[in-house]
Amino acid sequence: MAVTYRDAGVDIDEANSMIERIKPLGARTKTPFVLEGIGGFAGLCGLPQGLEEPVLVSGTDGVGTKLKVAFALQKHDTIGQDLVAMCVNDVLTTGAQPLFFLDYFATGKLKADTGAAVVRGIADGCVLAGCALLGGETAELPGMYADEEYDLAGFSVGVIDRKNLLGPARIQADDSIIAVPSTGLHSNGYSLARRVIEGEMGAKLTDHCEALGATYGEALLTPTRIYARAVRSLQERLGPDLHALCHVTGGGVPENLPRVLPDGVGAVLDQLRPWPTIFRVIREGGPVELDEMRRTFNLGIGLLCMVKKGREADAVAALAEASEDAYWIGHLTEQSGGERVRYVNDPEDRTP
Amino acid sequence: MAVTYRDAGVDIDEANSMIERIKPLGARTKTPFVLEGIGGFAGLCGLPQGLEEPVLVSGTDGVGTKLKVAFALQKHDTIGQDLVAMCVNDVLTTGAQPLFFLDYFATGKLKADTGAAVVRGIADGCVLAGCALLGGETAELPGMYADEEYDLAGFSVGVIDRKNLLGPARIQADDSIIAVPSTGLHSNGYSLARRVIEGEMGAKLTDHCEALGATYGEALLTPTRIYARAVRSLQERLGPDLHALCHVTGGGVPENLPRVLPDGVGAVLDQLRPWPTIFRVIREGGPVELDEMRRTFNLGIGLLCMVKKGREADAVAALAEASEDAYWIGHLTEQSGGERVRYVNDPEDRTP
Repeated sequence: MAVTYRDAGVDIDEANSMIERIKPLGARTKTPFVLEGIGGFAGLCGLPQGLEEPVLVSGTDGVGTKLKVAFALQKHDTIGQDLVAMCVNDVLTTGAQPLFFLDYFATGKLKADTGAAVVRGIADGCVLAGCALLGGETAELPGMYADEEYDLAGFSVGVIDRKNLLGPARIQADDSIIAVPSTGLHSNGYSLARRVIEGEMGAKLTDHCEALGATYGEALLTPTRIYARAVRSLQERLGPDLHALCHVTGGGVPENLPRVLPDGVGAVLDQLRPWPTIFRVIREGGPVELDEMRRTFNLGIGLLCMVKKGREADAVAALAEASEDAYWIGHLTEQSGGERVRYVNDPEDRTP
Repeated sequence: MAVTYRDAGVDIDEANSMIERIKPLGARTKTPFVLEGIGGFAGLCGLPQGLEEPVLVSGTDGVGTKLKVAFALQKHDTIGQDLVAMCVNDVLTTGAQPLFFLDYFATGKLKADTGAAVVRGIADGCVLAGCALLGGETAELPGMYADEEYDLAGFSVGVIDRKNLLGPARIQADDSIIAVPSTGLHSNGYSLARRVIEGEMGAKLTDHCEALGATYGEALLTPTRIYARAVRSLQERLGPDLHALCHVTGGGVPENLPRVLPDGVGAVLDQLRPWPTIFRVIREGGPVELDEMRRTFNLGIGLLCMVKKGREADAVAALAEASEDAYWIGHLTEQSGGERVRYVNDPEDRTP
């Protein structure tokens, strides 16, 4: 008997079936800049007109062990939005307009149903981000992943005129900081969250949690917010008074905010709100120390916006137009040495 | 006892140690277009001057179960070149100049040594491709991967002036086809290759093979050729007489070549060379049917170049300048129905 590729665990027919099902999903995300979509060796995308000095901005990310929650709940149609959000929100921090997205989907034994659900979520995310799903790779790797499991990686590219780039160079030492809420854990800290809930608390992800008004898994699987509309609204309202943006990911505010601060500038957060319930559940369930919580989770803050002092109300109004319940959370200050981010009167600074 | 992120299997210190070790690797790949390298939320890259209508060309890919060979040989410093090659060669088929590359590296338990070796290979590949390693994501996913295992995804973006795009629209029905050799399996067909060698033949990857003059694993792990110099040399010599390029990946010549052929055009391959030894070993070791071999492996051909009839010698000379031992392998022809790729007088068309 001759040996075939299928014998070796690779099913090209199932892959082709998945490709046929995701083609219309890609088409739904098409933008005026797309020259050629899924199919062909590469994806082609033009640039918006009128850019003096175009700068390409790229980001890559995965969704970490949030995947394990999707596996446990057998719900695969929202994790793709998380993937797009993690990449696109990074690109947005420069002020760039997201142009396109590509995904890498790897699994041990391809199931077209699961794969198509994942890509549907990716396409949903691309629509929210206003970028095209330009291509992707579906990899069947026998023996690399457990049955029914998969990994995801995403790549996004945006463009901005060089003169409009946001970041540390624009920061002023008395800028105000506006917080834009997260929708939950977003896509960071899941190894710790699961360890606490499934380990220390002895709960199942499918168990109902009174405090959350949902199962633990449902609360954990809430899709990551995509801030494309929020950033555009801020840019339109504030123009050059929008100075820098910080996407709060792994490491939390203390490790991410300094990435956009120039030397000699620190942040004071003195208008903090109480955490969303899921973070209190994790802190008490561990218990997890306050500093560990701050350096692992976003604690309810998905994006921080550094704006010129005096423009706080305009920023909040612009974000409200983009359906974000944003608020003034603190300010920058000149600082030499010590913690770059100081928490003052944190309502969560108490023994759990 | 309070629970920490480290308790949950995520070691941020090991990740930071790896980041410090890969920073100089990224710096080595820097091009004049890079505005900001690894670090920050996103990578920034400008465009070459003088493009009338820039088109961005993007590709994403992985290296499949070639990873398993790297694991078995515990050799991690060349698989990164494969990753770059798989992405960049796709981008090159449009004629685009590769600008930058990003990688996704995911593992169950991060080891900075292994991770840094992988990224060193990626940086080597970027140097060969002439593109910048602009960023990447290192993901530690406890419980998702076996010990000492990891997955890789890559993402590359290039740019070309729209008027210079290669592809089906440029093809003429009597074009000549020039073959550029592969360096082995490249990064496709490893599940079948391993099944044959480890299964049917009962050999270990570390066993020496007389016919190969090397161990099976060494032969299988040969890095994928990057055709950046080859394509640039062809463009310089042939100009508009270079019509289309086909990167021979999964599915082999019969499934990849039709992707760049317009309707009504087929290919006749009548100047085929014998296969490199590794493919004969696999065919005989299975045995594997001839058609299965053709639709799984590149069989010694990494890139096919469609050039204007009469420019064959110039194409071969241009490729020789880029150190490629290329040869005329066949021609296109008008065709309605039937196999899009026909093999005539294939020296391998015999009972193994």
